[in-house]
Amino acid sequence: QITLQKADSTTKKSNWYDNLSLRGYAQFRYNRLLETNDKLKCEQCDRSWGENGGLFLRRVRLVFFGQISKRVYFYIQPDFASSASTTSLNFGQLRDAYFDIGFDDDNEFRIRLGQSKIPYGFENMQSSQNRLTLDRNDALNSAVANERDLGAFFYWEPKATRALFSELVKIGLKGSGDYGVFAFGVFNGQTANKPELNNKLHIVSRLSYPFQIKNQIIEPGIQAYTGKFVVAKDQLSPGVKTVSDLNYTDQRVAASLIVYPKPFGVEAEYNIGRGPEFNKLTDSIEVQKLSGGYVLLNYMIKHKSQFYYPFVKYQYYDGGKKHERDARSYTVKELEIGLEWQPVKSFELVAMYTISNRRFEDFSLKNNRQAGQLLRLQAQVNF
Amino acid sequence: QITLQKADSTTKKSNWYDNLSLRGYAQFRYNRLLETNDKLKCEQCDRSWGENGGLFLRRVRLVFFGQISKRVYFYIQPDFASSASTTSLNFGQLRDAYFDIGFDDDNEFRIRLGQSKIPYGFENMQSSQNRLTLDRNDALNSAVANERDLGAFFYWEPKATRALFSELVKIGLKGSGDYGVFAFGVFNGQTANKPELNNKLHIVSRLSYPFQIKNQIIEPGIQAYTGKFVVAKDQLSPGVKTVSDLNYTDQRVAASLIVYPKPFGVEAEYNIGRGPEFNKLTDSIEVQKLSGGYVLLNYMIKHKSQFYYPFVKYQYYDGGKKHERDARSYTVKELEIGLEWQPVKSFELVAMYTISNRRFEDFSLKNNRQAGQLLRLQAQVNF
Amino acid sequence: QITLQKADSTTKKSNWYDNLSLRGYAQFRYNRLLETNDKLKCEQCDRSWGENGGLFLRRVRLVFFGQISKRVYFYIQPDFASSASTTSLNFGQLRDAYFDIGFDDDNEFRIRLGQSKIPYGFENMQSSQNRLTLDRNDALNSAVANERDLGAFFYWEPKATRALFSELVKIGLKGSGDYGVFAFGVFNGQTANKPELNNKLHIVSRLSYPFQIKNQIIEPGIQAYTGKFVVAKDQLSPGVKTVSDLNYTDQRVAASLIVYPKPFGVEAEYNIGRGPEFNKLTDSIEVQKLSGGYVLLNYMIKHKSQFYYPFVKYQYYDGGKKHERDARSYTVKELEIGLEWQPVKSFELVAMYTISNRRFEDFSLKNNRQAGQLLRLQAQVNF
Repeated sequence: QITLQKADSTTKKSNWYDNLSLRGYAQFRYNRLLETNDKLKCEQCDRSWGENGGLFLRRVRLVFFGQISKRVYFYIQPDFASSASTTSLNFGQLRDAYFDIGFDDDNEFRIRLGQSKIPYGFENMQSSQNRLTLDRNDALNSAVANERDLGAFFYWEPKATRALFSELVKIGLKGSGDYGVFAFGVFNGQTANKPELNNKLHIVSRLSYPFQIKNQIIEPGIQAYTGKFVVAKDQLSPGVKTVSDLNYTDQRVAASLIVYPKPFGVEAEYNIGRGPEFNKLTDSIEVQKLSGGYVLLNYMIKHKSQFYYPFVKYQYYDGGKKHERDARSYTVKELEIGLEWQPVKSFELVAMYTISNRRFEDFSLKNNRQAGQLLRLQAQVNF
Repeated sequence: QITLQKADSTTKKSNWYDNLSLRGYAQFRYNRLLETNDKLKCEQCDRSWGENGGLFLRRVRLVFFGQISKRVYFYIQPDFASSASTTSLNFGQLRDAYFDIGFDDDNEFRIRLGQSKIPYGFENMQSSQNRLTLDRNDALNSAVANERDLGAFFYWEPKATRALFSELVKIGLKGSGDYGVFAFGVFNGQTANKPELNNKLHIVSRLSYPFQIKNQIIEPGIQAYTGKFVVAKDQLSPGVKTVSDLNYTDQRVAASLIVYPKPFGVEAEYNIGRGPEFNKLTDSIEVQKLSGGYVLLNYMIKHKSQFYYPFVKYQYYDGGKKHERDARSYTVKELEIGLEWQPVKSFELVAMYTISNRRFEDFSLKNNRQAGQLLRLQAQVNF
Repeated sequence: QITLQKADSTTKKSNWYDNLSLRGYAQFRYNRLLETNDKLKCEQCDRSWGENGGLFLRRVRLVFFGQISKRVYFYIQPDFASSASTTSLNFGQLRDAYFDIGFDDDNEFRIRLGQSKIPYGFENMQSSQNRLTLDRNDALNSAVANERDLGAFFYWEPKATRALFSELVKIGLKGSGDYGVFAFGVFNGQTANKPELNNKLHIVSRLSYPFQIKNQIIEPGIQAYTGKFVVAKDQLSPGVKTVSDLNYTDQRVAASLIVYPKPFGVEAEYNIGRGPEFNKLTDSIEVQKLSGGYVLLNYMIKHKSQFYYPFVKYQYYDGGKKHERDARSYTVKELEIGLEWQPVKSFELVAMYTISNRRFEDFSLKNNRQAGQLLRLQAQVNF
């Protein structure tokens, strides 16, 4: 027996599918049940909210990835629910395309190059595959639309923490995945899949450390970024006033506190900063203060091999959204009460009741506050 | 030996490539030989017909799929021969992205969520990989451009029928694949990859039952759908008149009869209904009656390991095409005579002589009937 | 033991991943260090040169390929760093989508159908994954933007030469891959992913033969193509004059000489021809003469398992670029001095100092000569 096994292992050549893997997930939604106000919308969250919204594919992701040598890892993730224009949906567009180069054999020190998530905010980094609420909070997610940008990032963490980051996702605790204990990076600053529009890079840094106290795992974190954001010409309404070079200060600092659901969990984040925001009194885009955050309470129930996660989340945001028309001005107050059910690993259902009050104003929609309630449904497949 | 084998099978962990598979096909065409009228075109069929048409990739499909757990199946199919605009071709855009959730262990009862084929018309559901003629018939295919939409569908069929559906494709009889014996669904109604434009869903139902009589397999079917279709603003010529909310009744009923080629086969479908159609007398888009169908005669010859399928098809359609400019008005009479040759499973050649008479009229092309003949060629690779 | 092994091999069924493989590569760049003139740009090379350029994904390629039967091979390569518009980057668009059909069991005679590289120029055919300089030379690359087009190509080569072509890439000599000893083809002529705009096909032919002299491998080649190129309406500035049908003669002939780096290598190519070019004196696009080429000197150093390639390249081009705005007029003189470092197979770094003098003029930029220097950096991952 020994001889045979040895022969097998020594003659075994490497196959392409040993180093390279494929996985993915898809989300299918419907947001029109029990809707009380069809003018209540959220462009950044989900374009099928409200009037004329229908059945909708929110994400269709394929992930090609692999540790292709001891110190080289790659990760390419197109999303096939991306629009090429407002009338032509479901094209494949990159979310991630990065590679990690390790400086030691355990890859405790590594540099990440390419398009990837900016290490700013726990919920931003947590995959939508794992998040309980259907959409991210406006407060921190408005920092980096699609959570990503083109950049170069340095990450450090001890081997044991890396194993913990990985474990937190695997066992259903809905971790963020591995973005280091310490992160520092530079990036274009115009957000994912947008061309750079100035000669300055943004910089970002983050410190986050998960640790165990008895049965609980707690992960506090702080993070900040600064740079100059250029409001793109194609997102300006004719007539809106801007600074001459379209460059606006864009800087934020945030604190995060995660208590993982064992079985009761708390997730809280808050950020303050400054950035471009439409001012309806002057018809112009100006650098203004912004602030906001959220608190999420959740509970993990494992019944036989099935998982249930009841949750409640409250979020608040007051500030601009730099990547939307005229750096649209927002005030958001929203309460979400929901349940995620995972009968098997490969399938999840979320039902969520949303009570929302949103002011979103730009040059052509100057007095627009919408309040309302709706039931939101999502089916998700994981493969 | 027994010990070794046992050890192997019990320690064998699941690899990503066991649950997830990849296949696909591609079609390469040339339509300009023996052409008698270069104004004869068919937008829905193949944009390389007629004037300035050249060598053309009609379809480049990759299919990612898998039965990822006992009751969960997924299927994601981008087409890399999709246009992002008239001047930029060959982008990857979804055709299918759905998942099936079974209600029993044999998945006899299941629900399908996502973008998938609408169960309306046998030829619509049959894959282009298997179809003999290069394009689908105008009569039933004008019901659902690209055959697909975003929806939720219930399918039922006995286990044995499911096996038969699968077999019909596998052994070269060119079946439709598995869309249930009974189907019922709701869908947006604006066709694949288009945003929903009203607050109403379409509904569809289908009944189809394949059975064996001696050596022959016969599959009769009926199907119908109804809904409100919105003519999109970007497909309207300036000046054309419409109803104020752009919503048009869109409903059809169809009958299908398939006799599989063992060795002689017949395929016939016909549908009637109502939908938006351009009226050149009033310069407006109006709900009008439509009707049409086709008959296909084919023959399967297996010579050594090669397959030959001579075929002849006649089709007729009188009605509008809701998804084209101004809901373009059509009268189509077309005869196709051809041969498909499969020297190996992975490669096919089709040569087809088309005798066609097509009236297609919109606001800017009000008197346009084109008759002519041409030889069409297609090489297809299956992987 | 023998019995067991036999049983294993005879019962082994074919799995999808045995015939179909996946590989790819990605390039991440930064071009703004030591830059002396931010108006110096090269649209065809790299859109992140000069003013407002930032961190950039130049290529993100996935390759799906396989010899799916003895005489059928397919190759589908989308690039996920393609733009759908100037403001929306990183969509997946085809580069290659072709299949090869062999006429003999060794595939010495074969026909290639689909979108693939035009056999014109060694550097054009050499993959960007293997090329030392970050961009191709303007002189030969302006013949076929993106190097590819839709066509049908006949290739012939002896079995031994095919093995040599393959070996030249595998052992790090940076060969072109396999485009036959003799090539002949027809293609649309509007370049990759663009619709055909006339009724005439281009034709191309190439003869190239690699052979060994003592320790050196030498590959001389000649190639030529001819056709009518249509300047597309969306690439014309308002006011520029053209011939009435927009059809322009487009023909070139080129010579190539490659001495592979064992360890010292030389690569030289030159082409002359005629094609559309903007004339600023008449404000019109006219058929004009063009000429240009390059010489590359390189050296391969293998140190332990690492590879180093120092190189220097000089290029010259005088002519039009048919696929750019108004068939932009160019005079290019450029010297590049650089080093490629491959610490492992899966990762490469290139640093390259560029000294450039470029005249590029169209209707709205009539007197535009830019000279300058810059340091260019690229990290590449191969999987």
